[in-house]
Amino acid sequence: MRDITNLASADAMEAALREIGHERYHNLHPFHRLLHTGRLSKGQVQAWALNRYLYQSRIPRKDAALLARCEDADLRRAWLVRILDHDGNMGAEGGIVRWLHLCEGLGLDPGYVESEAGALPATRFAVDAYVRFVAERTLLEAVASSLTELFAPNIHNERIPGMLAGYGFVSEDMMAYFRHRLGQAPRDAGFALDYAKEHADTPEKRRLVCEALLFKCDVLWSQLDALHHAYVLDGGIPPGRFAPAPEDLALRGRAA
Amino acid sequence: MRDITNLASADAMEAALREIGHERYHNLHPFHRLLHTGRLSKGQVQAWALNRYLYQSRIPRKDAALLARCEDADLRRAWLVRILDHDGNMGAEGGIVRWLHLCEGLGLDPGYVESEAGALPATRFAVDAYVRFVAERTLLEAVASSLTELFAPNIHNERIPGMLAGYGFVSEDMMAYFRHRLGQAPRDAGFALDYAKEHADTPEKRRLVCEALLFKCDVLWSQLDALHHAYVLDGGIPPGRFAPAPEDLALRGRAA
Repeated sequence: MRDITNLASADAMEAALREIGHERYHNLHPFHRLLHTGRLSKGQVQAWALNRYLYQSRIPRKDAALLARCEDADLRRAWLVRILDHDGNMGAEGGIVRWLHLCEGLGLDPGYVESEAGALPATRFAVDAYVRFVAERTLLEAVASSLTELFAPNIHNERIPGMLAGYGFVSEDMMAYFRHRLGQAPRDAGFALDYAKEHADTPEKRRLVCEALLFKCDVLWSQLDALHHAYVLDGGIPPGRFAPAPEDLALRGRAA
Repeated sequence: MRDITNLASADAMEAALREIGHERYHNLHPFHRLLHTGRLSKGQVQAWALNRYLYQSRIPRKDAALLARCEDADLRRAWLVRILDHDGNMGAEGGIVRWLHLCEGLGLDPGYVESEAGALPATRFAVDAYVRFVAERTLLEAVASSLTELFAPNIHNERIPGMLAGYGFVSEDMMAYFRHRLGQAPRDAGFALDYAKEHADTPEKRRLVCEALLFKCDVLWSQLDALHHAYVLDGGIPPGRFAPAPEDLALRGRAA
Protein backbone atom coordinates (compact mmCIF):
# COMPACT_ATOMS: atom_id res chain seq x y z
CA MET A 1 0.00 0.00 0.00
CA ARG A 2 1.28 3.48 -0.83
CA ASP A 3 2.24 5.99 1.86
CA ILE A 4 -0.92 7.78 2.99
CA THR A 5 0.77 10.25 5.32
CA ASN A 6 1.64 12.88 2.76
CA LEU A 7 -0.90 12.83 -0.06
CA ALA A 8 -0.41 15.98 -2.14
CA SER A 9 -3.84 16.36 -3.74
CA ALA A 10 -7.43 15.22 -3.72
CA ASP A 11 -6.74 13.08 -6.76
CA ALA A 12 -3.78 11.41 -5.06
CA MET A 13 -6.11 10.68 -2.13
CA GLU A 14 -8.69 9.16 -4.45
CA ALA A 15 -6.03 6.92 -5.97
CA ALA A 16 -4.97 5.84 -2.46
CA LEU A 17 -8.59 5.13 -1.50
CA ARG A 18 -9.11 2.96 -4.57
CA GLU A 19 -5.89 1.11 -3.79
CA ILE A 20 -7.08 0.44 -0.22
CA GLY A 21 -10.31 -0.99 -1.60
CA HIS A 22 -8.38 -3.12 -4.05
CA GLU A 23 -6.27 -4.59 -1.23
CA ARG A 24 -8.55 -4.60 1.81
CA TYR A 25 -12.21 -4.75 0.75
CA HIS A 26 -13.98 -7.85 2.02
CA ASN A 27 -14.69 -9.22 -1.46
CA LEU A 28 -11.21 -10.73 -1.00
CA HIS A 29 -12.12 -12.58 2.20
CA PRO A 30 -12.08 -16.41 1.97
CA PHE A 31 -15.62 -16.58 3.39
CA HIS A 32 -16.97 -14.48 0.52
CA ARG A 33 -15.02 -16.56 -2.00
CA LEU A 34 -16.81 -19.63 -0.61
CA LEU A 35 -20.20 -17.87 -0.45
CA HIS A 36 -20.10 -16.64 -4.02
CA THR A 37 -19.05 -19.92 -5.60
CA GLY A 38 -21.61 -22.33 -4.14
CA ARG A 39 -19.20 -23.89 -1.68
CA LEU A 40 -21.17 -23.38 1.54
CA SER A 41 -24.04 -25.29 3.09
CA LYS A 42 -27.44 -23.73 3.61
CA GLY A 43 -26.66 -23.57 7.34
CA GLN A 44 -23.49 -21.59 6.68
CA VAL A 45 -25.34 -19.17 4.39
CA GLN A 46 -27.96 -18.76 7.13
CA ALA A 47 -25.22 -17.89 9.63
CA TRP A 48 -23.92 -15.24 7.24
CA ALA A 49 -27.36 -13.69 6.62
CA LEU A 50 -28.28 -13.68 10.30
CA ASN A 51 -25.05 -12.01 11.40
CA ARG A 52 -25.07 -9.56 8.53
CA TYR A 53 -28.58 -8.53 9.61
CA LEU A 54 -27.01 -6.97 12.68
CA TYR A 55 -24.84 -4.82 10.46
CA GLN A 56 -27.78 -3.84 8.21
CA SER A 57 -29.91 -2.93 11.20
CA ARG A 58 -27.33 -0.45 12.49
CA ILE A 59 -26.83 1.43 9.21
CA PRO A 60 -29.75 3.88 9.62
CA ARG A 61 -28.70 4.53 13.22
CA LYS A 62 -25.15 5.11 12.02
CA ASP A 63 -26.45 7.57 9.43
CA ALA A 64 -28.68 9.26 12.01
CA ALA A 65 -25.61 9.71 14.24
CA LEU A 66 -23.98 11.53 11.35
CA LEU A 67 -27.05 13.71 10.71
CA ALA A 68 -27.26 14.52 14.42
CA ARG A 69 -23.91 16.32 14.35
CA CYS A 70 -24.16 17.90 10.95
CA GLU A 71 -24.64 21.68 10.86
CA ASP A 72 -24.89 21.83 7.07
CA ALA A 73 -28.53 21.40 5.99
CA ASP A 74 -27.50 20.53 2.42
CA LEU A 75 -25.37 17.67 3.69
CA ARG A 76 -28.22 16.55 5.98
CA ARG A 77 -30.67 16.53 3.08
CA ALA A 78 -28.27 14.59 0.88
CA TRP A 79 -27.44 12.09 3.62
CA LEU A 80 -31.05 11.52 4.70
CA VAL A 81 -31.74 9.46 1.60
CA ARG A 82 -29.57 6.71 3.10
CA ILE A 83 -31.94 6.34 6.05
CA LEU A 84 -34.91 6.26 3.71
CA ASP A 85 -33.19 3.59 1.62
CA HIS A 86 -32.70 1.35 4.64
CA ASP A 87 -35.82 2.03 6.68
CA GLY A 88 -38.21 2.59 3.77
CA ASN A 89 -39.86 5.76 2.55
CA MET A 90 -43.54 6.62 3.10
CA GLY A 91 -44.62 3.01 3.47
CA ALA A 92 -42.35 1.57 0.76
CA GLU A 93 -40.12 -1.24 1.96
CA GLY A 94 -36.48 -0.48 2.65
CA GLY A 95 -33.24 -2.42 2.73
CA ILE A 96 -33.70 -3.89 6.19
CA VAL A 97 -37.05 -5.41 5.23
CA ARG A 98 -35.43 -6.79 2.07
CA TRP A 99 -32.66 -8.31 4.17
CA LEU A 100 -35.25 -9.99 6.38
CA HIS A 101 -36.87 -11.39 3.21
CA LEU A 102 -33.52 -12.92 2.34
CA CYS A 103 -33.26 -14.43 5.83
CA GLU A 104 -36.80 -15.78 5.64
CA GLY A 105 -36.14 -17.23 2.19
CA LEU A 106 -33.18 -19.05 3.71
CA GLY A 107 -35.53 -20.63 6.25
CA LEU A 108 -34.74 -18.43 9.23
CA ASP A 109 -37.46 -17.11 11.54
CA PRO A 110 -37.45 -13.31 11.04
CA GLY A 111 -38.30 -12.77 14.71
CA TYR A 112 -35.23 -14.76 15.72
CA VAL A 113 -33.09 -12.77 13.30
CA GLU A 114 -34.46 -9.46 14.61
CA SER A 115 -33.89 -10.55 18.21
CA GLU A 116 -30.14 -10.70 17.41
CA ALA A 117 -29.88 -13.54 19.95
CA GLY A 118 -28.08 -15.82 17.53
CA ALA A 119 -25.49 -13.33 16.25
CA LEU A 120 -21.83 -13.75 17.17
CA PRO A 121 -20.44 -11.39 19.84
CA ALA A 122 -17.68 -10.36 17.44
CA THR A 123 -20.32 -9.16 14.95
CA ARG A 124 -21.84 -6.93 17.59
CA PHE A 125 -18.48 -5.55 18.73
CA ALA A 126 -17.48 -4.68 15.15
CA VAL A 127 -20.81 -3.13 14.22
CA ASP A 128 -20.96 -1.09 17.42
CA ALA A 129 -17.43 0.13 16.76
CA TYR A 130 -18.62 1.44 13.38
CA VAL A 131 -21.61 3.33 14.80
CA ARG A 132 -19.39 4.84 17.49
CA PHE A 133 -16.73 5.83 14.98
CA VAL A 134 -19.32 7.80 13.02
CA ALA A 135 -20.73 9.39 16.17
CA GLU A 136 -17.37 10.38 17.65
CA ARG A 137 -14.85 11.17 14.91
CA THR A 138 -14.79 14.31 12.77
CA LEU A 139 -17.59 14.71 10.25
CA LEU A 140 -15.06 14.23 7.45
CA GLU A 141 -13.96 10.87 8.89
CA ALA A 142 -17.58 9.87 9.47
CA VAL A 143 -18.39 10.55 5.81
CA ALA A 144 -15.20 8.82 4.66
CA SER A 145 -16.00 5.64 6.58
CA SER A 146 -18.88 5.08 4.14
CA LEU A 147 -16.49 4.91 1.18
CA THR A 148 -16.50 1.12 1.11
CA GLU A 149 -19.62 1.73 -1.01
CA LEU A 150 -17.23 2.56 -3.84
CA PHE A 151 -16.46 -1.14 -4.06
CA ALA A 152 -19.90 -2.58 -3.26
CA PRO A 153 -21.30 -2.81 -6.82
CA ASN A 154 -18.48 -5.18 -7.80
CA ILE A 155 -19.27 -7.50 -4.92
CA HIS A 156 -23.01 -7.43 -5.65
CA ASN A 157 -22.42 -8.13 -9.33
CA GLU A 158 -20.42 -11.16 -8.30
CA ARG A 159 -22.78 -12.24 -5.53
CA ILE A 160 -26.13 -12.17 -7.32
CA PRO A 161 -25.25 -14.54 -10.20
CA GLY A 162 -22.86 -16.50 -7.96
CA MET A 163 -25.47 -17.26 -5.32
CA LEU A 164 -28.23 -17.95 -7.86
CA ALA A 165 -25.99 -20.39 -9.71
CA GLY A 166 -24.43 -21.86 -6.61
CA TYR A 167 -27.39 -22.64 -4.36
CA GLY A 168 -30.64 -24.43 -5.15
CA PHE A 169 -32.17 -22.80 -2.09
CA VAL A 170 -31.58 -19.22 -3.31
CA SER A 171 -34.16 -17.61 -5.58
CA GLU A 172 -34.22 -14.37 -7.56
CA ASP A 173 -36.63 -12.60 -5.17
CA MET A 174 -34.19 -13.17 -2.30
CA MET A 175 -31.64 -11.05 -4.17
CA ALA A 176 -33.82 -7.90 -4.03
CA TYR A 177 -31.63 -6.21 -1.43
CA PHE A 178 -28.55 -6.48 -3.63
CA ARG A 179 -30.36 -5.46 -6.83
CA HIS A 180 -31.49 -2.24 -5.17
CA ARG A 181 -28.03 -1.54 -3.80
CA LEU A 182 -26.60 -1.68 -7.33
CA GLY A 183 -28.31 1.64 -7.97
CA GLN A 184 -28.04 3.17 -4.50
CA ALA A 185 -24.40 2.47 -3.65
CA PRO A 186 -22.78 4.33 -6.60
CA ARG A 187 -24.92 7.41 -5.94
CA ASP A 188 -24.00 7.38 -2.23
CA ALA A 189 -20.33 6.59 -2.84
CA GLY A 190 -20.03 9.31 -5.47
CA PHE A 191 -21.49 11.88 -3.10
CA ALA A 192 -19.21 10.83 -0.23
CA LEU A 193 -16.14 10.79 -2.43
CA ASP A 194 -16.87 14.27 -3.76
CA TYR A 195 -17.41 15.49 -0.21
CA ALA A 196 -14.14 13.97 0.99
CA LYS A 197 -12.17 15.36 -1.97
CA GLU A 198 -13.57 18.83 -1.39
CA HIS A 199 -13.10 18.91 2.40
CA ALA A 200 -9.83 17.01 2.88
CA ASP A 201 -7.76 20.07 2.00
CA THR A 202 -4.55 19.16 3.87
CA PRO A 203 -2.30 16.07 3.84
CA GLU A 204 -3.35 15.42 7.46
CA LYS A 205 -7.04 15.38 6.56
CA ARG A 206 -6.33 13.18 3.52
CA ARG A 207 -4.57 10.73 5.82
CA LEU A 208 -7.58 10.69 8.16
CA VAL A 209 -9.89 9.97 5.21
CA CYS A 210 -7.73 7.02 4.19
CA GLU A 211 -7.58 5.75 7.76
CA ALA A 212 -11.35 5.96 8.05
CA LEU A 213 -11.65 3.70 5.01
CA LEU A 214 -9.03 1.31 6.45
CA PHE A 215 -10.99 1.20 9.71
CA LYS A 216 -14.20 0.41 7.84
CA CYS A 217 -12.49 -2.36 5.87
CA ASP A 218 -11.45 -3.85 9.25
CA VAL A 219 -15.07 -3.64 10.46
CA LEU A 220 -16.29 -5.61 7.44
CA TRP A 221 -13.36 -8.06 7.36
CA SER A 222 -13.50 -8.98 11.04
CA GLN A 223 -17.18 -9.90 10.74
CA LEU A 224 -16.27 -12.46 8.09
CA ASP A 225 -13.33 -13.70 10.18
CA ALA A 226 -15.78 -14.49 12.99
CA LEU A 227 -18.14 -16.34 10.61
CA HIS A 228 -15.25 -18.20 9.01
CA HIS A 229 -13.93 -19.26 12.42
CA ALA A 230 -17.24 -20.42 13.87
CA TYR A 231 -18.98 -21.91 10.84
CA VAL A 232 -16.31 -22.93 8.31
CA LEU A 233 -13.10 -23.76 10.19
CA ASP A 234 -14.93 -25.42 13.11
CA GLY A 235 -13.29 -23.10 15.62
CA GLY A 236 -16.39 -23.42 17.77
CA ILE A 237 -19.76 -21.68 17.88
CA PRO A 238 -19.93 -19.57 21.06
CA PRO A 239 -22.50 -20.95 23.55
CA GLY A 240 -26.06 -19.89 22.83
CA ARG A 241 -25.36 -18.57 19.35
CA PHE A 242 -26.95 -19.73 16.10
CA ALA A 243 -26.23 -23.36 15.34
CA PRO A 244 -27.46 -24.60 11.94
CA ALA A 245 -29.83 -27.56 11.93
CA PRO A 246 -28.17 -30.82 10.79
CA GLU A 247 -30.36 -30.95 7.67
CA ASP A 248 -29.22 -27.42 6.70
CA LEU A 249 -25.58 -28.41 7.08
CA ALA A 250 -26.28 -31.43 4.90
CA LEU A 251 -27.90 -29.25 2.21
CA ARG A 252 -24.82 -28.10 0.30
CA GLY A 253 -24.23 -25.59 -2.47
CA ARG A 254 -23.66 -26.98 -5.94
CA ALA A 255 -19.86 -26.80 -5.61
CA ALA A 256 -19.62 -27.78 -1.93
CA MET B 1 -27.46 -22.68 32.01
CA ARG B 2 -30.13 -21.96 34.59
CA ASP B 3 -32.83 -19.33 34.08
CA ILE B 4 -31.39 -15.95 35.11
CA THR B 5 -34.59 -13.95 34.65
CA ASN B 6 -36.11 -14.64 38.04
CA LEU B 7 -33.37 -15.19 40.62
CA ALA B 8 -34.97 -15.06 44.05
CA SER B 9 -32.00 -14.12 46.23
CA ALA B 10 -28.43 -12.86 46.25
CA ASP B 11 -27.21 -16.39 46.91
CA ALA B 12 -29.16 -17.72 43.94
CA MET B 13 -27.52 -15.01 41.87
CA GLU B 14 -24.08 -16.01 43.10
CA ALA B 15 -24.77 -19.62 42.16
CA ALA B 16 -25.85 -18.48 38.68
CA LEU B 17 -22.71 -16.36 38.32
CA ARG B 18 -20.48 -19.31 39.24
CA GLU B 19 -22.34 -21.49 36.76
CA ILE B 20 -21.79 -18.90 34.00
CA GLY B 21 -18.08 -18.91 34.78
CA HIS B 22 -18.02 -22.70 34.74
CA GLU B 23 -19.62 -22.77 31.28
CA ARG B 24 -18.39 -19.59 29.57
CA TYR B 25 -15.06 -18.45 31.04
CA HIS B 26 -12.26 -18.41 28.49
CA ASN B 27 -10.20 -21.07 30.27
CA LEU B 28 -12.39 -23.41 28.18
CA HIS B 29 -11.38 -21.88 24.85
CA PRO B 30 -9.37 -24.15 22.51
CA PHE B 31 -6.68 -21.48 22.14
CA HIS B 32 -6.03 -21.50 25.89
CA ARG B 33 -6.00 -25.31 25.93
CA LEU B 34 -3.22 -25.15 23.33
CA LEU B 35 -1.38 -22.31 25.09
CA HIS B 36 -1.32 -24.01 28.47
CA THR B 37 -0.11 -27.39 27.24
CA GLY B 38 2.93 -26.45 25.19
CA ARG B 39 1.22 -26.95 21.84
CA LEU B 40 1.85 -23.53 20.27
CA SER B 41 4.88 -22.08 18.52
CA LYS B 42 6.76 -19.10 19.92
CA GLY B 43 5.22 -16.98 17.14
CA GLN B 44 1.72 -17.98 18.21
CA VAL B 45 2.49 -17.18 21.85
CA GLN B 46 3.83 -13.80 20.71
CA ALA B 47 0.57 -13.11 18.86
CA TRP B 48 -1.36 -13.90 22.04
CA ALA B 49 0.81 -11.65 24.25
CA LEU B 50 0.76 -8.77 21.80
CA ASN B 51 -3.03 -8.82 21.39
CA ARG B 52 -3.64 -9.33 25.08
CA TYR B 53 -1.52 -6.23 25.73
CA LEU B 54 -4.30 -4.18 24.17
CA TYR B 55 -6.73 -5.58 26.72
CA GLN B 56 -4.33 -4.97 29.62
CA SER B 57 -3.69 -1.42 28.50
CA ARG B 58 -7.40 -0.55 28.63
CA ILE B 59 -8.07 -1.92 32.12
CA PRO B 60 -7.02 1.21 34.06
CA ARG B 61 -9.01 3.38 31.64
CA LYS B 62 -11.99 1.08 32.12
CA ASP B 63 -11.62 1.43 35.88
CA ALA B 64 -11.24 5.19 35.59
CA ALA B 65 -14.48 5.29 33.60
CA LEU B 66 -16.15 3.56 36.54
CA LEU B 67 -14.60 5.96 39.08
CA ALA B 68 -15.68 8.92 36.96
CA ARG B 69 -19.36 8.12 37.45
CA CYS B 70 -19.20 6.90 41.01
CA GLU B 71 -20.77 9.17 43.64
CA ASP B 72 -19.80 6.93 46.56
CA ALA B 73 -16.34 7.89 47.84
CA ASP B 74 -15.96 4.54 49.65
CA LEU B 75 -16.51 2.70 46.40
CA ARG B 76 -14.08 5.04 44.62
CA ARG B 77 -11.40 4.42 47.26
CA ALA B 78 -11.89 0.66 47.07
CA TRP B 79 -11.88 0.65 43.27
CA LEU B 80 -8.85 2.91 42.90
CA VAL B 81 -6.51 0.11 43.95
CA ARG B 82 -7.21 -1.56 40.61
CA ILE B 83 -5.73 1.39 38.73
CA LEU B 84 -2.70 1.37 41.02
CA ASP B 85 -2.26 -2.36 40.43
CA HIS B 86 -2.17 -1.88 36.67
CA ASP B 87 -0.40 1.46 36.31
CA GLY B 88 1.92 1.10 39.31
CA ASN B 89 1.88 2.92 42.62
CA MET B 90 4.36 5.66 43.58
CA GLY B 91 7.03 4.49 41.20
CA ALA B 92 6.52 0.75 41.74
CA GLU B 93 5.89 -1.18 38.55
CA GLY B 94 2.33 -2.21 37.74
CA GLY B 95 0.65 -4.92 35.74
CA ILE B 96 1.03 -3.23 32.36
CA VAL B 97 4.80 -2.97 32.78
CA ARG B 98 4.88 -6.62 33.83
CA TRP B 99 2.93 -7.53 30.71
CA LEU B 100 5.45 -5.66 28.58
CA HIS B 101 8.21 -7.66 30.32
CA LEU B 102 6.42 -10.80 29.21
CA CYS B 103 6.24 -9.50 25.64
CA GLU B 104 9.89 -8.52 25.68
CA GLY B 105 10.86 -11.91 27.09
CA LEU B 106 9.05 -13.47 24.16
CA GLY B 107 11.25 -11.46 21.79
CA LEU B 108 8.79 -8.71 20.89
CA ASP B 109 9.85 -5.06 20.67
CA PRO B 110 7.96 -3.31 23.52
CA GLY B 111 7.58 -0.17 21.39
CA TYR B 112 5.87 -2.20 18.69
CA VAL B 113 3.60 -3.81 21.27
CA GLU B 114 2.70 -0.42 22.77
CA SER B 115 2.02 1.03 19.32
CA GLU B 116 -0.83 -1.51 18.99
CA ALA B 117 -0.12 -1.56 15.24
CA GLY B 118 0.11 -5.35 15.11
CA ALA B 119 -3.03 -6.16 17.11
CA LEU B 120 -6.04 -7.68 15.37
CA PRO B 121 -9.00 -5.37 14.67
CA ALA B 122 -11.29 -7.82 16.48
CA THR B 123 -9.19 -7.40 19.63
CA ARG B 124 -9.68 -3.66 19.51
CA PHE B 125 -13.42 -3.91 18.86
CA ALA B 126 -13.91 -6.29 21.79
CA VAL B 127 -11.76 -4.30 24.21
CA ASP B 128 -13.40 -1.02 23.25
CA ALA B 129 -16.82 -2.61 23.75
CA TYR B 130 -15.77 -3.47 27.31
CA VAL B 131 -14.59 0.06 28.16
CA ARG B 132 -17.79 1.48 26.72
CA PHE B 133 -19.96 -0.98 28.61
CA VAL B 134 -18.41 0.17 31.89
CA ALA B 135 -18.76 3.82 30.93
CA GLU B 136 -22.38 3.59 29.78
CA ARG B 137 -24.28 0.93 31.73
CA THR B 138 -25.48 1.24 35.31
CA LEU B 139 -22.83 1.26 38.01
CA LEU B 140 -24.05 -2.16 39.18
CA GLU B 141 -23.54 -3.63 35.70
CA ALA B 142 -20.15 -1.92 35.42
CA VAL B 143 -19.03 -3.52 38.70
CA ALA B 144 -20.51 -6.88 37.71
CA SER B 145 -18.62 -6.96 34.40
CA SER B 146 -15.42 -7.36 36.45
CA LEU B 147 -16.65 -10.63 37.97
CA THR B 148 -14.66 -12.76 35.55
CA GLU B 149 -11.93 -12.17 38.16
CA LEU B 150 -13.72 -14.81 40.23
CA PHE B 151 -12.38 -17.40 37.81
CA ALA B 152 -8.97 -15.88 37.06
CA PRO B 153 -6.91 -17.60 39.78
CA ASN B 154 -7.78 -21.01 38.34
CA ILE B 155 -6.57 -20.00 34.91
CA HIS B 156 -3.36 -18.48 36.29
CA ASN B 157 -2.67 -21.58 38.38
CA GLU B 158 -2.98 -23.61 35.21
CA ARG B 159 -1.07 -21.17 33.02
CA ILE B 160 2.06 -20.57 35.09
CA PRO B 161 3.21 -24.20 35.44
CA GLY B 162 1.76 -25.06 32.02
CA MET B 163 3.73 -22.40 30.18
CA LEU B 164 6.92 -22.99 32.17
CA ALA B 165 6.76 -26.72 31.44
CA GLY B 166 5.55 -26.32 27.88
CA TYR B 167 7.90 -23.73 26.40
CA GLY B 168 11.71 -23.55 26.51
CA PHE B 169 11.44 -19.84 25.69
CA VAL B 170 9.34 -18.98 28.78
CA SER B 171 11.14 -18.23 32.05
CA GLU B 172 9.93 -17.72 35.60
CA ASP B 173 10.48 -13.92 35.57
CA MET B 174 8.14 -13.62 32.57
CA MET B 175 5.34 -15.02 34.74
CA ALA B 176 5.47 -12.05 37.18
CA TYR B 177 2.20 -10.57 35.91
CA PHE B 178 0.29 -13.76 36.66
CA ARG B 179 1.95 -14.34 40.04
CA HIS B 180 0.84 -10.88 41.17
CA ARG B 181 -2.68 -11.43 39.88
CA LEU B 182 -3.02 -14.55 42.03
CA GLY B 183 -3.19 -12.24 45.05
CA GLN B 184 -4.96 -9.28 43.47
CA ALA B 185 -7.78 -11.00 41.60
CA PRO B 186 -9.45 -12.74 44.59
CA ARG B 187 -9.43 -9.50 46.59
CA ASP B 188 -11.00 -7.58 43.68
CA ALA B 189 -13.47 -10.31 42.82
CA GLY B 190 -14.56 -10.69 46.43
CA PHE B 191 -15.21 -6.97 46.71
CA ALA B 192 -17.18 -6.86 43.44
CA LEU B 193 -19.22 -9.93 44.34
CA ASP B 194 -20.13 -8.49 47.75
CA TYR B 195 -21.12 -5.21 46.07
CA ALA B 196 -23.27 -6.99 43.50
CA LYS B 197 -24.97 -9.18 46.10
CA GLU B 198 -25.76 -6.15 48.24
CA HIS B 199 -27.01 -3.87 45.46
CA ALA B 200 -28.82 -6.33 43.16
CA ASP B 201 -31.94 -6.30 45.33
CA THR B 202 -34.53 -7.24 42.70
CA PRO B 203 -34.77 -10.13 40.20
CA GLU B 204 -34.36 -7.58 37.38
CA LYS B 205 -31.09 -6.27 38.82
CA ARG B 206 -29.86 -9.83 39.43
CA ARG B 207 -30.54 -10.60 35.77
CA LEU B 208 -28.55 -7.52 34.72
CA VAL B 209 -25.62 -8.64 36.90
CA CYS B 210 -25.64 -12.07 35.24
CA GLU B 211 -25.89 -10.52 31.79
CA ALA B 212 -22.94 -8.24 32.54
CA LEU B 213 -20.86 -11.32 33.33
CA LEU B 214 -22.08 -13.05 30.16
CA PHE B 215 -21.13 -9.97 28.16
CA LYS B 216 -17.65 -9.95 29.69
CA CYS B 217 -17.20 -13.66 28.95
CA ASP B 218 -18.02 -12.81 25.31
CA VAL B 219 -15.40 -10.03 25.34
CA LEU B 220 -12.71 -12.45 26.52
CA TRP B 221 -13.84 -15.38 24.34
CA SER B 222 -14.05 -13.41 21.10
CA GLN B 223 -10.46 -12.19 21.53
CA LEU B 224 -9.31 -15.81 21.57
CA ASP B 225 -11.55 -16.65 18.60
CA ALA B 226 -9.73 -13.99 16.59
CA LEU B 227 -6.29 -15.32 17.63
CA HIS B 228 -7.36 -18.89 16.93
CA HIS B 229 -8.65 -17.94 13.47
CA ALA B 230 -5.64 -15.90 12.39
CA TYR B 231 -2.76 -17.81 14.00
CA VAL B 232 -3.87 -21.41 14.58
CA LEU B 233 -6.50 -22.31 11.97
CA ASP B 234 -4.77 -20.35 9.18
CA GLY B 235 -7.89 -18.30 8.51
CA GLY B 236 -5.64 -15.45 7.42
CA ILE B 237 -3.79 -12.66 9.22
CA PRO B 238 -5.45 -9.34 8.34
CA PRO B 239 -3.16 -7.14 6.19
CA GLY B 240 -0.61 -5.16 8.17
CA ARG B 241 -1.13 -7.07 11.42
CA PHE B 242 1.52 -9.01 13.36
CA ALA B 243 2.99 -11.87 11.38
CA PRO B 244 5.40 -14.12 13.32
CA ALA B 245 8.90 -14.53 11.90
CA PRO B 246 9.47 -17.93 10.25
CA GLU B 247 12.01 -18.90 12.90
CA ASP B 248 9.47 -18.19 15.64
CA LEU B 249 6.89 -20.37 13.92
CA ALA B 250 9.53 -23.10 13.70
CA LEU B 251 10.29 -22.82 17.43
CA ARG B 252 7.59 -25.03 18.89
CA GLY B 253 6.43 -25.76 22.41
CA ARG B 254 7.44 -29.09 23.90
CA ALA B 255 4.14 -30.76 22.94
CA ALA B 256 3.63 -29.03 19.59
